Amino acid sequence: MVTITARGTSAHSNERGDAYDPKCPTRHVLDRIGDKWTVLVVGSLRGGPLRFTQLRLAVGGVAPKVLTQTLRALERDGLLTRTVFAEVPPRVEYELTELGQTLQTPIAAIRDWAELHMSQVVEARARYDDEI
Amino acid sequence: MVTITARGTSAHSNERGDAYDPKCPTRHVLDRIGDKWTVLVVGSLRGGPLRFTQLRLAVGGVAPKVLTQTLRALERDGLLTRTVFAEVPPRVEYELTELGQTLQTPIAAIRDWAELHMSQVVEARARYDDEI
Repeated sequence: MVTITARGTSAHSNERGDAYDPKCPTRHVLDRIGDKWTVLVVGSLRGGPLRFTQLRLAVGGVAPKVLTQTLRALERDGLLTRTVFAEVPPRVEYELTELGQTLQTPIAAIRDWAELHMSQVVEARARYDDEI
Repeated sequence: MVTITARGTSAHSNERGDAYDPKCPTRHVLDRIGDKWTVLVVGSLRGGPLRFTQLRLAVGGVAPKVLTQTLRALERDGLLTRTVFAEVPPRVEYELTELGQTLQTPIAAIRDWAELHMSQVVEARARYDDEI
């Protein structure tokens, strides 16, 4: 029996992708979640919803246009919701979906790796550039 | 006492970066390790060294130019070594360094996430594109 849930997803949702298959959409997904800004935005939203200005401060050094593009892509991928509250001026909040929250663990793993090994990578780059 | 090791690294190597600091090189490191091709190349080299053609087959669907650029960037970052064997024709092998091997765990985490949630992301994209 194929169960159709209220969200319109079906048993198809359980199909596993293959990152090594050039035709598999997993590659596009990889592109999105490995992106530096995705890593920083998802991490910033760990504690709950934020407004655009709060997110911009939390991420640090992100151009508004780039942040807008990142948020839109994450919304399109079902990782984030954008809620407009009917106030004057309108309040807009960004919040991770349940799916988006599941990204915290893998994203923390690559962020931790980058922070822990940053110095080694910087030194390797300097050595490489000295040699060529 | 600052210990200088045979590899030319110093106590400085233990300094931890901060991904949320716009001036910290951690951001450049994040850019590199989150890259789709990095994820696929590092995963392909998990079992030991490979030649360019073997790597190209293992990764699947990568343009030679893009693979060359990815390999060079990984070499520059100290994650990979390129060894030329004096044979006719010369044999060239790519192998992860010790530092590169430490990437396997975080990279597997994001590859697994992408493979497991690929269908949900694809469905979310289709819904989003239907609505706008």
